[in-house]
Amino acid sequence: MNGSLPLSPPDNDHLIRDETGTQTLIGYVVDVGGQDGQGRCWLDIGPQHTNRHGVLHGGIATAILDNASGTTGSLTVDATGKAPFLTVTLTTQFIAPVGIGKRVTATGRVTGGGRSILYIAADLVDEDGRLIASSTGVFKRVPKERLT
Amino acid sequence: MNGSLPLSPPDNDHLIRDETGTQTLIGYVVDVGGQDGQGRCWLDIGPQHTNRHGVLHGGIATAILDNASGTTGSLTVDATGKAPFLTVTLTTQFIAPVGIGKRVTATGRVTGGGRSILYIAADLVDEDGRLIASSTGVFKRVPKERLT
Amino acid sequence: MNGSLPLSPPDNDHLIRDETGTQTLIGYVVDVGGQDGQGRCWLDIGPQHTNRHGVLHGGIATAILDNASGTTGSLTVDATGKAPFLTVTLTTQFIAPVGIGKRVTATGRVTGGGRSILYIAADLVDEDGRLIASSTGVFKRVPKERLT
Amino acid sequence: MNGSLPLSPPDNDHLIRDETGTQTLIGYVVDVGGQDGQGRCWLDIGPQHTNRHGVLHGGIATAILDNASGTTGSLTVDATGKAPFLTVTLTTQFIAPVGIGKRVTATGRVTGGGRSILYIAADLVDEDGRLIASSTGVFKRVPKERLT
Repeated sequence: MNGSLPLSPPDNDHLIRDETGTQTLIGYVVDVGGQDGQGRCWLDIGPQHTNRHGVLHGGIATAILDNASGTTGSLTVDATGKAPFLTVTLTTQFIAPVGIGKRVTATGRVTGGGRSILYIAADLVDEDGRLIASSTGVFKRVPKERLT
Repeated sequence: MNGSLPLSPPDNDHLIRDETGTQTLIGYVVDVGGQDGQGRCWLDIGPQHTNRHGVLHGGIATAILDNASGTTGSLTVDATGKAPFLTVTLTTQFIAPVGIGKRVTATGRVTGGGRSILYIAADLVDEDGRLIASSTGVFKRVPKERLT
Repeated sequence: MNGSLPLSPPDNDHLIRDETGTQTLIGYVVDVGGQDGQGRCWLDIGPQHTNRHGVLHGGIATAILDNASGTTGSLTVDATGKAPFLTVTLTTQFIAPVGIGKRVTATGRVTGGGRSILYIAADLVDEDGRLIASSTGVFKRVPKERLT
Repeated sequence: MNGSLPLSPPDNDHLIRDETGTQTLIGYVVDVGGQDGQGRCWLDIGPQHTNRHGVLHGGIATAILDNASGTTGSLTVDATGKAPFLTVTLTTQFIAPVGIGKRVTATGRVTGGGRSILYIAADLVDEDGRLIASSTGVFKRVPKERLT
């Protein structure tokens, strides 16, 4: 297991896989088991995740940061990590390259906000704790009446 | 064909497919045939591109905006659209949802910069010209000596 | 007069000066007279607006872009341009320097949004139409019940 | 003195005031005395720093975050904190209002980068440690040959 996920109980009930078409396509795993309210999302990088330079594509990195952030928002509502949130805007800084064979993990944290809007930052690190990318974003809770 | 791509000659020499692992995985097409210096990137949305709400995932939208922007940077160097650029930072605004079966096209434009850094904006629109998402980013040309 | 402000009638009823402490301190002028729904904000650059390099300070440029954007949001409510909006997040690209003695004008435009949130972009140009800086931001309408 | 600036020696050699026109106009103070390599910038909020809502104007908040970030970049070069850096792009999140009479302090930290470009984040907090705004930006070192 990944050293950066020490909070995961052994039964894996807290892991979300294949929830959406994009998740199945890219193959990342969402972890809502942290007792700290922070959503996590990890990916084992394969050749299908690379850009022209042979390293992790920025679009894939962004998808993982976005998912860890959105999950962190959902965890402010309930422990399922599935309460719906929309990404309003996301700014990503691409700090270092990371290659095939590595596992990267994004972890979100709420930095502010209120009932309808949350500010959520996230860091994407590799197995050695090296910072690969970071993001800040604005997320909006989807009202229940819009979901029926 | 898509009304927003009127500049494409019929021989399709200007289309780039399957250049990277990520491009093959997601299935977008890069078009460097515009005579206006603007890189384009399109995707036909399928169930593998959706989020929890059943519409285009923000991470996929970002990947397409990023690729259209990077290609636009490359087109400032030569007409192949393949001169290597790195994304330094990218801010994306998620403006409207778009569902399965639609084609979305991102088009980049250089708004400023110099020899090493370019500011590139991009818009992602659907077949009806509706704005789905937009981005602004900073891109860095990769020096040749770093590529060998 | 500035060539980029052709819509201003001569009576100047549409100009807002000294509305806030910051406006008086910096000395910018807000123009809500455009018939196009776009808020404008201009500043005549003096030595009190410069940074270490002797050109317009990025913080001042951002203040003007922010004000033009917020005013553009207000103009979606009514023609006074004073309906209260909050800036949720703002991303600014600093594209070119501009020196003392020049007038710069920021013009906002709504790119998307709904009842409570607006996406607003703005460009800051000098008298020659040269792009100095541009911004994209998320703005939130302040509900009336919070203002009493 | 401000509890968030415990690293300041009593002789105040590390404080920069009135270095630029903008600094004199707004009245913020730059502190390069931290032994942690983090640039700081503080402001005592007066009526001349307020927006329509009577609280700190977002443009002023951004100016302070920008200065703390740029100073942090300069501190990677030498201890004067004056080595010239340009702001390429800055994203600011406006998290909470803060009113007249409060002192706010911005502190920068380098999150990545190399010789020419630095990623620098900054937080603006009030005297009670409450987060008012935060920023992430890209900063570029100005080559010496361009300064003569």
